[in-house]
Amino acid sequence: MVSQPISPKQSRRVLSSQPSRFCPSSIVLNWGAADPIKRGPVVGTVLNPAHRNVIGTHSGSYAVYRALAVASGRLRADHRADLTNTSPAVKIGPHPAWADPDRIISLDPFGAVVGEAYQHLYKQGYDIRPSIAITKAHINMPELQDAVAKGRLVEDGKVMKPGGDLVVTKAAIEPVWYLPGIAKRLNVEEKMLRRALFEHTGGMFPDLVTCPDLKVFLPPIGGITVYIIGEPDAIADPDKPLTVRVHDECNGSDVFGSDICTCRPYLVHGIEACIQTAQAGGAGVVVYLRKEGRALGEVTKFLVYNARKRQAGGDRADAYFARTECVAGVQDMRFQELMPDVLHWLGITRIDRLVSMSDLKYNAITQSGIQVIERVAIPDDLIPADAQVEIEAKKAAGYYTQSQVLTQESLAEIKGRGLTD
Amino acid sequence: MVSQPISPKQSRRVLSSQPSRFCPSSIVLNWGAADPIKRGPVVGTVLNPAHRNVIGTHSGSYAVYRALAVASGRLRADHRADLTNTSPAVKIGPHPAWADPDRIISLDPFGAVVGEAYQHLYKQGYDIRPSIAITKAHINMPELQDAVAKGRLVEDGKVMKPGGDLVVTKAAIEPVWYLPGIAKRLNVEEKMLRRALFEHTGGMFPDLVTCPDLKVFLPPIGGITVYIIGEPDAIADPDKPLTVRVHDECNGSDVFGSDICTCRPYLVHGIEACIQTAQAGGAGVVVYLRKEGRALGEVTKFLVYNARKRQAGGDRADAYFARTECVAGVQDMRFQELMPDVLHWLGITRIDRLVSMSDLKYNAITQSGIQVIERVAIPDDLIPADAQVEIEAKKAAGYYTQSQVLTQESLAEIKGRGLTD
Repeated sequence: MVSQPISPKQSRRVLSSQPSRFCPSSIVLNWGAADPIKRGPVVGTVLNPAHRNVIGTHSGSYAVYRALAVASGRLRADHRADLTNTSPAVKIGPHPAWADPDRIISLDPFGAVVGEAYQHLYKQGYDIRPSIAITKAHINMPELQDAVAKGRLVEDGKVMKPGGDLVVTKAAIEPVWYLPGIAKRLNVEEKMLRRALFEHTGGMFPDLVTCPDLKVFLPPIGGITVYIIGEPDAIADPDKPLTVRVHDECNGSDVFGSDICTCRPYLVHGIEACIQTAQAGGAGVVVYLRKEGRALGEVTKFLVYNARKRQAGGDRADAYFARTECVAGVQDMRFQELMPDVLHWLGITRIDRLVSMSDLKYNAITQSGIQVIERVAIPDDLIPADAQVEIEAKKAAGYYTQSQVLTQESLAEIKGRGLTD
Repeated sequence: MVSQPISPKQSRRVLSSQPSRFCPSSIVLNWGAADPIKRGPVVGTVLNPAHRNVIGTHSGSYAVYRALAVASGRLRADHRADLTNTSPAVKIGPHPAWADPDRIISLDPFGAVVGEAYQHLYKQGYDIRPSIAITKAHINMPELQDAVAKGRLVEDGKVMKPGGDLVVTKAAIEPVWYLPGIAKRLNVEEKMLRRALFEHTGGMFPDLVTCPDLKVFLPPIGGITVYIIGEPDAIADPDKPLTVRVHDECNGSDVFGSDICTCRPYLVHGIEACIQTAQAGGAGVVVYLRKEGRALGEVTKFLVYNARKRQAGGDRADAYFARTECVAGVQDMRFQELMPDVLHWLGITRIDRLVSMSDLKYNAITQSGIQVIERVAIPDDLIPADAQVEIEAKKAAGYYTQSQVLTQESLAEIKGRGLTD
């Protein structure tokens, strides 16, 4: 099955920067078709240009490391993944939303089942890779052990094992963008979208501009991880309760417990709510999206921290968003309107408890056709010392709360630590 | 200072896919020059093509989101960052290694001080952005509170405040690759490196191939976060002790506490060692590198988990690396030989305690000229239940240990959980 190694020199890959010479036209993709065969596989291989039917390649930004591996001779340029035993540990879908070309446009609903659905093409030599992988795991977090000790959680031996081990199903998802759908969702012309994606990345992927017939783009950005607590089948079952936490990455809090924001405490609170729902016969879903610092990246985030803490009057809730705008030009680049796709992939039509106060997330989810019964705010006692600035600023800006929203004057009085403390 | 908004339509950006028409030649970069003015600023702007002197743009993969923001009209295409009050909270360097063109080739040593060093150019209208941001924070992790309760750590009110709040200086660093240096480090021709980076990413940045005079590349990959515990000045002081933990991201363990690996427990152990060293008058450094799943990405990681747990005989230490090779073609794509750059940026010449068992990391660090006095293994009682497979396989493959390395037969007996448990 494995052919001779091909050095980059011998490769016959034609520069995709020469539009008149080469835009691949391989298996046609019919986005939104219910049958994976009719839909066609996403082929992002770099082994055979003639097989490609997308712009970009698999593994998001890790493709850059793969390129280093080939350059340095550690990876054979013609390596094709051996997918033996890698198929999903749990079956997800298909769900009706998979057959709606407008509902899911930022991931490939068939991304986990390519080994099964496109086996005949794989055998013909096509290098078809999964963009989704589903496995099972046990996880354990000190805060959950504490919740058990305090009697808020119970080790039932099934959802949660002795010692606080939580049994989860988890899925990793790479972004797969159907460009006409992305353009429609963002209310922009597809041509304009392609041009901006090319120009404002410093000239990444000229194919975006020169190959308008290639409708799918595998962007080199971070993906999504889904943690399912309880029986996966319960997620799409309208007779069973569902709790969801949609969480955007914040490495400083999620891993290191920074006290300037509520990210990890709110994440853990969401997991706790998921466990309770699973133990009541339903399911819990935590969606973790790699969008560090509101998708502005961590360098911008730290620049903004400095600007907030050094501005006249110190770090104040009334100026919370303004400093981000000065540095980044916007308050937020997360594009929550793309986020509900993963919920539709899971077959979600109703969320009983949405553990999020974000109005942007709530609006995106409900406008995508998912019913939300209840919104769960972070309990006051979980808000870290220096995070009052963030939480009061967000509540004043429209975040969900049942408590009082502060006036502009009161907001100015909510202050955080300075840089010298 | 802010000019009129420019829509993508009006932009005069020339397709960088047309090599004969346009490769920018702006301020020349003299990599390795000790004086930032002689070195020249890294200009990755997309506002004025004539100002650019690199391939790619700032913010790593988040440039893709910035492009969406421009396309959807939320971000002015001509936004230039207002850097008021964003300068480093703590001064790092300059250090002798900054003036060595071979020592630091994957980040810009002057990345944090651009606002100061290139102020005159900024005033002339150049859009020069920091690739490094340095701030201060308080962090708190449940495991550290536990270490205080158990008497292993002391709240001294300075390094660690009451309640377990740890005072840190932290830096976020974007990758800035000097391509001739990367090629030299990986022992490959620069031309071959450029071609592989273009071809094996599916045609990203033709400038890599068509603009050989552009020597610096801002790759759209994740960066680095540095956490400094204790006085930053102690790091490069040969008279003071230094503890270092070099940690590659593992979201499933670092955030969610998956029990299949030792990542978070070892990270926390490293932070504990850093605190002890800082309290003894030295400093501790934790380097967090965004290289999920050995830089193979999380989809590949989960595929490998399934293959490991389903193979004949179950998940076994003797077959730990083999399954990764089947799927990914290699065991590891982290390229540890690039990792010591951040240590040289910090001015490190000697590490008293290196909290890592990785032979790849140890070799990379010592071969880059840094002396390592002692290596600290993860204590046995911190190894989670299902992670024995990983740790025994790694020890057998050359990881540092003071305990016995198992034979091939014994390795086959170290087994992990199946997918159905």
